Amino acid sequence: MSEPQRIALVGIGKIAVDQHVPAIRASDDWSLEATVSRNGSVDDVEAFRDIDAMLTARPDIGVVSLCLPPVPRFAYALAALKAGRHVMLEKPPGATIAEVQILDAMARERGLTLFATWHSRKAKGVADAKKWLSDKSIKRAHVTWRESVRKWHPGQDWVFEPGGMGVFDPGINALSILTEIMPVALHLDAADLSFPSNRQTPIAATLAFSNNVSAEFDWREEDADIWDIEVETNDGTIALRNGGNVLEIGGKAQGEMVGMSGEYPALYSRMADLVRRGKSDVDLAPMIHVSDAMTLGRRTVVDPFDF
Amino acid sequence: MSEPQRIALVGIGKIAVDQHVPAIRASDDWSLEATVSRNGSVDDVEAFRDIDAMLTARPDIGVVSLCLPPVPRFAYALAALKAGRHVMLEKPPGATIAEVQILDAMARERGLTLFATWHSRKAKGVADAKKWLSDKSIKRAHVTWRESVRKWHPGQDWVFEPGGMGVFDPGINALSILTEIMPVALHLDAADLSFPSNRQTPIAATLAFSNNVSAEFDWREEDADIWDIEVETNDGTIALRNGGNVLEIGGKAQGEMVGMSGEYPALYSRMADLVRRGKSDVDLAPMIHVSDAMTLGRRTVVDPFDF
Repeated sequence: MSEPQRIALVGIGKIAVDQHVPAIRASDDWSLEATVSRNGSVDDVEAFRDIDAMLTARPDIGVVSLCLPPVPRFAYALAALKAGRHVMLEKPPGATIAEVQILDAMARERGLTLFATWHSRKAKGVADAKKWLSDKSIKRAHVTWRESVRKWHPGQDWVFEPGGMGVFDPGINALSILTEIMPVALHLDAADLSFPSNRQTPIAATLAFSNNVSAEFDWREEDADIWDIEVETNDGTIALRNGGNVLEIGGKAQGEMVGMSGEYPALYSRMADLVRRGKSDVDLAPMIHVSDAMTLGRRTVVDPFDF
Repeated sequence: MSEPQRIALVGIGKIAVDQHVPAIRASDDWSLEATVSRNGSVDDVEAFRDIDAMLTARPDIGVVSLCLPPVPRFAYALAALKAGRHVMLEKPPGATIAEVQILDAMARERGLTLFATWHSRKAKGVADAKKWLSDKSIKRAHVTWRESVRKWHPGQDWVFEPGGMGVFDPGINALSILTEIMPVALHLDAADLSFPSNRQTPIAATLAFSNNVSAEFDWREEDADIWDIEVETNDGTIALRNGGNVLEIGGKAQGEMVGMSGEYPALYSRMADLVRRGKSDVDLAPMIHVSDAMTLGRRTVVDPFDF
């Protein structure tokens, strides 16, 4: 059994409080030593307002986990890597593909771990779905990802600012699962993007990929969370529901309904392993599909949206 | 001296007639054996309307050069690679990043050459500018790329359709030079994109990169072609003008004003060399910056545009 690794958490917002802090605290791999946040803090943990102050004051902290919105994330990641710390990135790993490539190159040069996390890939059914699909031919697949932006991002206007990604903020979770389980690489053929007339990012999108794969993302669903991926193969159908946590083969559920609470512990376990082995894990495929959709997509202006 | 390689040219439009055909015909490396186009043809060259028909009828043609708009390009490239032919792609190499990655992987698997060309990188001053900048620190750089869409894409509505890239169609030429000559990797911090109210792609854009690098693209310039890159370094200034064909160091021109006629011959010479050596050349950096701008950019609606 190895000693816990010292970690600092940067960006103490909803996702940090709901997921990161409980995952770190429940793990023997980690010791939460510091936070960096303009407003937030965690009981009994040293709180900094500034990343550089933390990096200077706490050279003993070897790992930094960033759960900020994508736009400011790069500057923090760069500062941490320059200071010789291993870095873990909430999804999406950045606001641009180029910046994540720069971080990746820098981590490699310096022998540091960079982990671009995709929490949905750690949902309970994903690994089994991937295994089951690995020797199948895909006839078609469809993703339905509908949730309420009011419920999941209450008042968070940054999601509608440039770089906030809009409905691709949840949609990229679906794409992270899809790119993990599919036995072939996909590319986008067409996309329709619905932009509220008063906003800079889409509130809904439909995507048409190669190999008869399609996706429908909508942030205006107020009645339920629908996070389903259905795949029809040469050997029957498979579905992942509840964000990858329920696996159905041939219409029959393969396990119990479980929440997403296991995803973040699995990410932190993986990060501990990557640091121990001196490896990085930076898969940009989900982000590339989003960039491709924003580049190739046909834009439609829809009703204004306000929280 | 080796035998000329047999090549087919797909997409006989303005750029094929103006640049590709003269470059191939003037070269000892190549023998233009066939064309594929719905409407166009070239005197004394066997003309096909369908890529599959050409690939079946002419198994002796080992190389296919694609100068179609980006959206249909993938299907043609895929067909050619599947038929065991080496492939050369006009810029940009595709409508999405994912599709070019798929082509790149397929070419590697099959031991075929894939060349994603960036003709502006072959402009006369680029190699010298790159060499001069290689040991300098960049203080700032600015790109000005202004031309008339009416002059360069007369009536070509596809440039304003999703995937047509709008002003990034010329702008990516600037980015292909910038990414070639800069001694550091850049990433986009912000972008402003001007969309005509009746169009799906921007007619103008301003980009703010890291390292004090900025760019201004405008397709509404009716009076001149302005294709300039100015770089201020710790050791003085350098400028590339006329699309990379004129190099100025410290305000002094380093050679004569020349046209772009050398760019396509240089691309075909490079392709001949890649095929002989069994190599590929697929640098996606210019395309990634465009995708990042389309993803991160702030959108402004401007006056409608009609040819």
